[in-house]
Amino acid sequence: MENQRLCVKDFISGQTVDQVFVVRQKELRTTKTGDLYISATLGDRSGSIPGRMWQASEAIFDSIPPDGFLHVKGRVEDYRGTLQIVIDACRPFPTDKVNLSDFLPVTENDVEEMWSELLEILRGVKNKHLRLLVKKFIEDQQIVSAFKRAPAAMQLHNPFVGGLLEHTLSVARNAKALLGMYPHLNADLVLTGVFLHDIGKSAELSGGLNIRYTDRGQLVGHITIAAIWVQEKAALLAEELGEPFPKRIVNLLQHIILSHHGEYEFGSPKLPAIPEAFFIHYLDNLDAKMYMTINRIEKDPDHDSSFTGWVKELRTRLYKHSGDLSDGEDDGSQTGSLFE
Amino acid sequence: MENQRLCVKDFISGQTVDQVFVVRQKELRTTKTGDLYISATLGDRSGSIPGRMWQASEAIFDSIPPDGFLHVKGRVEDYRGTLQIVIDACRPFPTDKVNLSDFLPVTENDVEEMWSELLEILRGVKNKHLRLLVKKFIEDQQIVSAFKRAPAAMQLHNPFVGGLLEHTLSVARNAKALLGMYPHLNADLVLTGVFLHDIGKSAELSGGLNIRYTDRGQLVGHITIAAIWVQEKAALLAEELGEPFPKRIVNLLQHIILSHHGEYEFGSPKLPAIPEAFFIHYLDNLDAKMYMTINRIEKDPDHDSSFTGWVKELRTRLYKHSGDLSDGEDDGSQTGSLFE
Amino acid sequence: MENQRLCVKDFISGQTVDQVFVVRQKELRTTKTGDLYISATLGDRSGSIPGRMWQASEAIFDSIPPDGFLHVKGRVEDYRGTLQIVIDACRPFPTDKVNLSDFLPVTENDVEEMWSELLEILRGVKNKHLRLLVKKFIEDQQIVSAFKRAPAAMQLHNPFVGGLLEHTLSVARNAKALLGMYPHLNADLVLTGVFLHDIGKSAELSGGLNIRYTDRGQLVGHITIAAIWVQEKAALLAEELGEPFPKRIVNLLQHIILSHHGEYEFGSPKLPAIPEAFFIHYLDNLDAKMYMTINRIEKDPDHDSSFTGWVKELRTRLYKHSGDLSDGEDDGSQTGSLFE
Amino acid sequence: MENQRLCVKDFISGQTVDQVFVVRQKELRTTKTGDLYISATLGDRSGSIPGRMWQASEAIFDSIPPDGFLHVKGRVEDYRGTLQIVIDACRPFPTDKVNLSDFLPVTENDVEEMWSELLEILRGVKNKHLRLLVKKFIEDQQIVSAFKRAPAAMQLHNPFVGGLLEHTLSVARNAKALLGMYPHLNADLVLTGVFLHDIGKSAELSGGLNIRYTDRGQLVGHITIAAIWVQEKAALLAEELGEPFPKRIVNLLQHIILSHHGEYEFGSPKLPAIPEAFFIHYLDNLDAKMYMTINRIEKDPDHDSSFTGWVKELRTRLYKHSGDLSDGEDDGSQTGSLFE
Amino acid sequence: MENQRLCVKDFISGQTVDQVFVVRQKELRTTKTGDLYISATLGDRSGSIPGRMWQASEAIFDSIPPDGFLHVKGRVEDYRGTLQIVIDACRPFPTDKVNLSDFLPVTENDVEEMWSELLEILRGVKNKHLRLLVKKFIEDQQIVSAFKRAPAAMQLHNPFVGGLLEHTLSVARNAKALLGMYPHLNADLVLTGVFLHDIGKSAELSGGLNIRYTDRGQLVGHITIAAIWVQEKAALLAEELGEPFPKRIVNLLQHIILSHHGEYEFGSPKLPAIPEAFFIHYLDNLDAKMYMTINRIEKDPDHDSSFTGWVKELRTRLYKHSGDLSDGEDDGSQTGSLFE
Amino acid sequence: MENQRLCVKDFISGQTVDQVFVVRQKELRTTKTGDLYISATLGDRSGSIPGRMWQASEAIFDSIPPDGFLHVKGRVEDYRGTLQIVIDACRPFPTDKVNLSDFLPVTENDVEEMWSELLEILRGVKNKHLRLLVKKFIEDQQIVSAFKRAPAAMQLHNPFVGGLLEHTLSVARNAKALLGMYPHLNADLVLTGVFLHDIGKSAELSGGLNIRYTDRGQLVGHITIAAIWVQEKAALLAEELGEPFPKRIVNLLQHIILSHHGEYEFGSPKLPAIPEAFFIHYLDNLDAKMYMTINRIEKDPDHDSSFTGWVKELRTRLYKHSGDLSDGEDDGSQTGSLFE
Repeated sequence: MENQRLCVKDFISGQTVDQVFVVRQKELRTTKTGDLYISATLGDRSGSIPGRMWQASEAIFDSIPPDGFLHVKGRVEDYRGTLQIVIDACRPFPTDKVNLSDFLPVTENDVEEMWSELLEILRGVKNKHLRLLVKKFIEDQQIVSAFKRAPAAMQLHNPFVGGLLEHTLSVARNAKALLGMYPHLNADLVLTGVFLHDIGKSAELSGGLNIRYTDRGQLVGHITIAAIWVQEKAALLAEELGEPFPKRIVNLLQHIILSHHGEYEFGSPKLPAIPEAFFIHYLDNLDAKMYMTINRIEKDPDHDSSFTGWVKELRTRLYKHSGDLSDGEDDGSQTGSLFE
Repeated sequence: MENQRLCVKDFISGQTVDQVFVVRQKELRTTKTGDLYISATLGDRSGSIPGRMWQASEAIFDSIPPDGFLHVKGRVEDYRGTLQIVIDACRPFPTDKVNLSDFLPVTENDVEEMWSELLEILRGVKNKHLRLLVKKFIEDQQIVSAFKRAPAAMQLHNPFVGGLLEHTLSVARNAKALLGMYPHLNADLVLTGVFLHDIGKSAELSGGLNIRYTDRGQLVGHITIAAIWVQEKAALLAEELGEPFPKRIVNLLQHIILSHHGEYEFGSPKLPAIPEAFFIHYLDNLDAKMYMTINRIEKDPDHDSSFTGWVKELRTRLYKHSGDLSDGEDDGSQTGSLFE
Repeated sequence: MENQRLCVKDFISGQTVDQVFVVRQKELRTTKTGDLYISATLGDRSGSIPGRMWQASEAIFDSIPPDGFLHVKGRVEDYRGTLQIVIDACRPFPTDKVNLSDFLPVTENDVEEMWSELLEILRGVKNKHLRLLVKKFIEDQQIVSAFKRAPAAMQLHNPFVGGLLEHTLSVARNAKALLGMYPHLNADLVLTGVFLHDIGKSAELSGGLNIRYTDRGQLVGHITIAAIWVQEKAALLAEELGEPFPKRIVNLLQHIILSHHGEYEFGSPKLPAIPEAFFIHYLDNLDAKMYMTINRIEKDPDHDSSFTGWVKELRTRLYKHSGDLSDGEDDGSQTGSLFE
Repeated sequence: MENQRLCVKDFISGQTVDQVFVVRQKELRTTKTGDLYISATLGDRSGSIPGRMWQASEAIFDSIPPDGFLHVKGRVEDYRGTLQIVIDACRPFPTDKVNLSDFLPVTENDVEEMWSELLEILRGVKNKHLRLLVKKFIEDQQIVSAFKRAPAAMQLHNPFVGGLLEHTLSVARNAKALLGMYPHLNADLVLTGVFLHDIGKSAELSGGLNIRYTDRGQLVGHITIAAIWVQEKAALLAEELGEPFPKRIVNLLQHIILSHHGEYEFGSPKLPAIPEAFFIHYLDNLDAKMYMTINRIEKDPDHDSSFTGWVKELRTRLYKHSGDLSDGEDDGSQTGSLFE
Repeated sequence: MENQRLCVKDFISGQTVDQVFVVRQKELRTTKTGDLYISATLGDRSGSIPGRMWQASEAIFDSIPPDGFLHVKGRVEDYRGTLQIVIDACRPFPTDKVNLSDFLPVTENDVEEMWSELLEILRGVKNKHLRLLVKKFIEDQQIVSAFKRAPAAMQLHNPFVGGLLEHTLSVARNAKALLGMYPHLNADLVLTGVFLHDIGKSAELSGGLNIRYTDRGQLVGHITIAAIWVQEKAALLAEELGEPFPKRIVNLLQHIILSHHGEYEFGSPKLPAIPEAFFIHYLDNLDAKMYMTINRIEKDPDHDSSFTGWVKELRTRLYKHSGDLSDGEDDGSQTGSLFE
Repeated sequence: MENQRLCVKDFISGQTVDQVFVVRQKELRTTKTGDLYISATLGDRSGSIPGRMWQASEAIFDSIPPDGFLHVKGRVEDYRGTLQIVIDACRPFPTDKVNLSDFLPVTENDVEEMWSELLEILRGVKNKHLRLLVKKFIEDQQIVSAFKRAPAAMQLHNPFVGGLLEHTLSVARNAKALLGMYPHLNADLVLTGVFLHDIGKSAELSGGLNIRYTDRGQLVGHITIAAIWVQEKAALLAEELGEPFPKRIVNLLQHIILSHHGEYEFGSPKLPAIPEAFFIHYLDNLDAKMYMTINRIEKDPDHDSSFTGWVKELRTRLYKHSGDLSDGEDDGSQTGSLFE
């Protein structure tokens, strides 16, 4: 049935609705005449829409799962210029029967394929202790499971399920491609650092249907979380090995993680102080900016302008036609220029 | 014998030398005529002086302990405007026989008394889990021993053995004094946060005779080190208690530590986001600035000027006579002003 | 009668209104059919609401006192989603009969008690000239009267009648509590400086029912105003004493006032250059931030989120549960985390 | 006799000295053999030179006037690469017999002529109250005398006796020349503002032979000093006139003074908020930069380079040949370029 | 007919419309019942208004010229609080019959008179090569034509047809007036630099009815465009003269253009490094700020406040009564102040 | 003979000198006894040393070629702690007989091989107009010759002959390696942009034996120079092709050049606004930082410290042992830590 579901962003007034939504918010209210009604926010991966159920009861209200799924029957109405769903009937819908990707933005790539490719690259790590450390992370089911699901960022780049893995793999590929150019770099340190640089984001974001920062994400942040994990894994290894885990490796990996934002202003408590940290900082930044610029240009809603709207993070508008080198209508060569 | 030792800063040309120094640096060199000689830097808590031993041998050179103590006989000479010691004879001196405070700048307060007072204040922590956590730190002999010895900073404030304890105690006293003014604050969280805010400095600085940053101090930094220790102690407690240690406590304490510098630019990866973090940030800053300003004014070498030289960290010169409210000679009221 | 008045923020559609409001704005307009009607903004300490009086006359319009009080009869209506009062009748209400605190946000503390406590603290000033100077300010009825009424700031902290006194007293208490910790500080200078640091705000804000900046407040500012007052009071004292008032005292007090914002960017033309100026700067900042954070958390309208909305001045969101150290639902320990 | 005096900067080793110097510093010291000798710093407008008098007595030392003049007989010697004067005999020299301009850098223009021209421009002020206020300043002998002597700045621009007047006159001329272009400007306010914008510098710098900041200059600063003077003069006028002096005039003039540095970072507690304040800010800046650039280029010691050394305040080096538009040897057109 | 046209900003509900508009945007849409209607934005120099034509056809839609003129018959209606025009009939209107100044904001000065005055000033350039270069620009019909039409900026200052010429002339006048004050300046270089400093704006903005940045304007910018033009004109002259054009002149003029914004942050790739560049930078800034402040004050919509709203570019609000030195009602002297 | 020449940095006192130097500076002076002597600065690629020739004549002085080569016979002496050469005899040495790499720091790679590889990469450009444009640059003998010789920067990275080519090739290789990862990028635009991004440096630095900025380099800068060259080459091509060269290509290439520093503060008048500009900005920065960090670590003179000295441009010290992952002596694990 879910195959035929309509995206929220495509609704028009007058449509009949008979499908599943994720519940983003719900509230029981009283009308001026004293009747109960339910006000809710329903959504899917394409957006959100208000829902109203008149003549509701507390029982119905209680049956609606917050942050869960709801099968809704009703119709779309235009109320003062905004669409809403008038709900005739609803019942909770089991989470394991939904196609999660209908409700959450998800990477277009295959998560397991990406994970395999990343593991393949990490197999290139030769230093014994780094190999063991990488292994400890890979065997941590909780971390790996969250790592595969996490977005790379809330909004800025790869903001969808699998985005963190997608971004990490992309940086890893690029690092592998360029390591040969700089033989002075410690390749093992680079590859491990790339794997771990953003891994703390797995715990920075809560993994419900509605992605948001966890308290720990906001109060402590992914940079410190990842540094702590390195400490913990190294301690576990020392115990298993029966000998100290090299302190220098812990220092260097934590340094790479702490410094990878490159500037204090962006939340790095340390600036890069080894070539490998600079290398990762620039490749991380490069991949994020490639996503941001290409995605922002593709999604730009104004088809008439040759520039996107203002992009605050980049302090500029983006030009949309660098891919096409022939002169277009909008490059000042057309009539209408001050030069006429 | 060490009672009569002369401070390096008081040496004058022509003096005979027969006392112990700390060896800050040593080098074996060859004269133009091919003879070996030793070039060394000798010091005590008041400063450093070059030493030269002519007609030296490799055996003598090897007997000089780097970062250790040396009994030197010789005399002070003026060489091109700079004093140096011409060494006639020298022998290593056992570390356990020196009065360490002759060689390292040390707090003027009694370390154990300060430690007791701090413990007394910490006894005020009522929350069970915070009490246990504080206890875990206090029972960690390695951390406590280093905490008592560490300076509060390399140069900026309380830069001497015991300085970290002195500063921490001072902030704790002030916090205790002001907590009553702000009943909304969580007093237990504040007191524990004050105790731990700079504790990572115990591992940021190496504890030889010549204080300097450790590799870990430079690459990772005391802020992240302390956050990691909180994680480790909480994990130990969870194991001992057989139940999870409250995550919120870990988050809040780490947040206080991470944010206590108050600005990204000063190495805080998170800005204060709870009242307790602001409270600690300002009291920490206040105490550090009190030391910096009062100490800088007291030590100012120029007795004629009513202002110190430029203080880079404060972006100003300091006025030295705010303690005396009567008009002095230098306040523009004397003859010689443009108003004459 | 005013006991029963309803707060504007508690109005609901359909209520009958028969009480006094402060008039924030009034306008006489013409309907499309040529009739006159009155559009006004009515308010009290809890907020504002539009009022409409149909079939109005110029006489009625003229009888409404701008920035004064109006007794209104009518009813509350919902007009396109916004509440408004449809006015049936209205008449001006004498200012001396209203309870001013119904219309202006006012400190919850007793103004005269606070003033007494502040005077008590100032009695601790021992230096003769500073005592005389403090006395001159205390005897200036115009300044004292305005000082007791002024808010500490337009919006940032203690933004209500009596807020300036409340904040000044709080800083004075804290200063007194900590002065013993720093015996090098000139306590007389500190206490006088605390009293005067923000006193210029008494002339920076106009004292009508609707607090706003005076022209002098915007063009010259409270920092320079206070520095000028110190100069004037010192000149008066010199005249009365028949001898010069110590220039150094004037310099130091003006310096403390000028530098107490701590940064050029925040409007201080001089950076702190004496320990006492740093001391006051940090205690001033501490008290302001305590108000801002605690108040912002208490007033946060969203009860579901564990964080407030973005607080621009603090460059962060605030965490609302630092007062409760047990694990809550929102700290990432609940099901639904990426770690599941 | 003083006609023949040699400038300190022109001394060469071996010369006989028999002329007057200003005493910048003096000290009585003991040689290693226990004899007394005098170490002094002697100077004139061109620079400073150390002086040494061997076999000195306390009586001679006491006869040397600090910050006064000394007639010295002796000779110039090269001591370890630095010139010094070996003093054979010396005696104090009466201040009223020296040509002050030999010892202090002085404007090349005639001070009284400049003052007259400035008065002439100020006569253009038509508003009654501004005229009276200007008059009050002009009649203040203490201020005017200091105003005529003060430099415009310690180092940055017009750093010599009369420099403040020279700069103020220059800005006044320019203001007068451009006022016609902007008829919306209040010309009276502009001219008065130009006159007063830097007048506080008269009290910011001490007027001895060795110009330096007064305590008041450093603690309070010329901007606040001038704002206070406006307040005081207006109060005097109100008393004399028997009616209030217009508050708006005081506000506007103080605003112009407070805001004329144009940026918080440069010590302005208020940013320009009236057209007249912007006008004065730019003309002030323009004249200062004209002096700085032209003077820096003229004084550049390196005749081979077409650029001066780095000018920190301007964050650039200055090109020295903008006055000559023909191609020179150094513009990259000569042989030796990478293009050869 | 156009004489009687009503300005868009003066429309009221119910009016009949029968006049020409510029078409700012047009769109063909479908109602819920499947009928076509046209949504357009119509405008003139005073503002914009939505237009709706019901029961439209594709033929009518196609006849509407984008960025062209449209004669509209219909009436003004209030739709949910916003005015719109319901179009009964419309037909395209020939561009050459409109009074362009009805649709574009235009300088109030005579363009040709301004141009003549600028040429007269430029005739003062004596250096042969600079004269030739100025002549080359003046003879470039394309540049001159665009230069006369361009605004000085999109929004900040002189944002109307002829604004660039108006601003350039104003700076040239001021430069001429002040050149006599600074005889060290190269007057020829200054005058030519003033003429060319913003000339690149002629190509930065497209010259249709709706002024906006060209692609080249956004991607390359007027500063680089002008530097390139100098290079091209110099190359043409070298060819014509049969000898190299002096490289130093090209360097200096390009330097003046590149550095005239005065700060890297404002898009200058070089900071001023010759006195002439500083001179032009300050006069350029002065004239722009005079326009911005005076215009902002004049246009301020709120007649009750003595301050304008916040002006983001100036980081302040502007005081509106600096032209009137008598005390007004709003300067804090009136009743209602905290001082009562 | 030059094979045996000693590097200046290896000189020791007492050595006999009989070899060629480059003349960095020369001056004819008079001793106190009136004799002439020559003061010169002699150098090679390793450093500089003062030279003195006593009893010199004007004829000898005139024979010394400034910025040329000089064969010197004499000996090395220690004069007050600094080595100098006392010249017994000297004669000019023909430039074409020296091994230039003895006197100028030169890339260790083969210039022609690097050039061939760069050309090979550029052959991958498929767009007709970009190919033609690249060809125009490659055929410009003056530019290519200078491009091959130029350093990449004065000091920061690759500061030696051939450094610009080395850096450009490195960025081109990396771009080629990563282009496959981002199929949305316009590969032709990227490769051409990489080739041209720094090409203006060929004209920014003078090509004598002593590399320094040209006047044009300092006044105009390599960024604007390169943008101008693109304009000129495009104009030539348009002429040759008999049709306009696409404006969009010119805009985009100039945009890439103008924006490649990535920040206004680093001299870019435009911020990156197309994905290709971001791509080049990061790869440029990455390669420069790789050189800076690896080179700085290798050259660090202090072998005892695990960190280099402060690196101003990177705002940190660099850790020297990231290449070796075993625990070293300096990582805080050794005895002597505060943890003992």
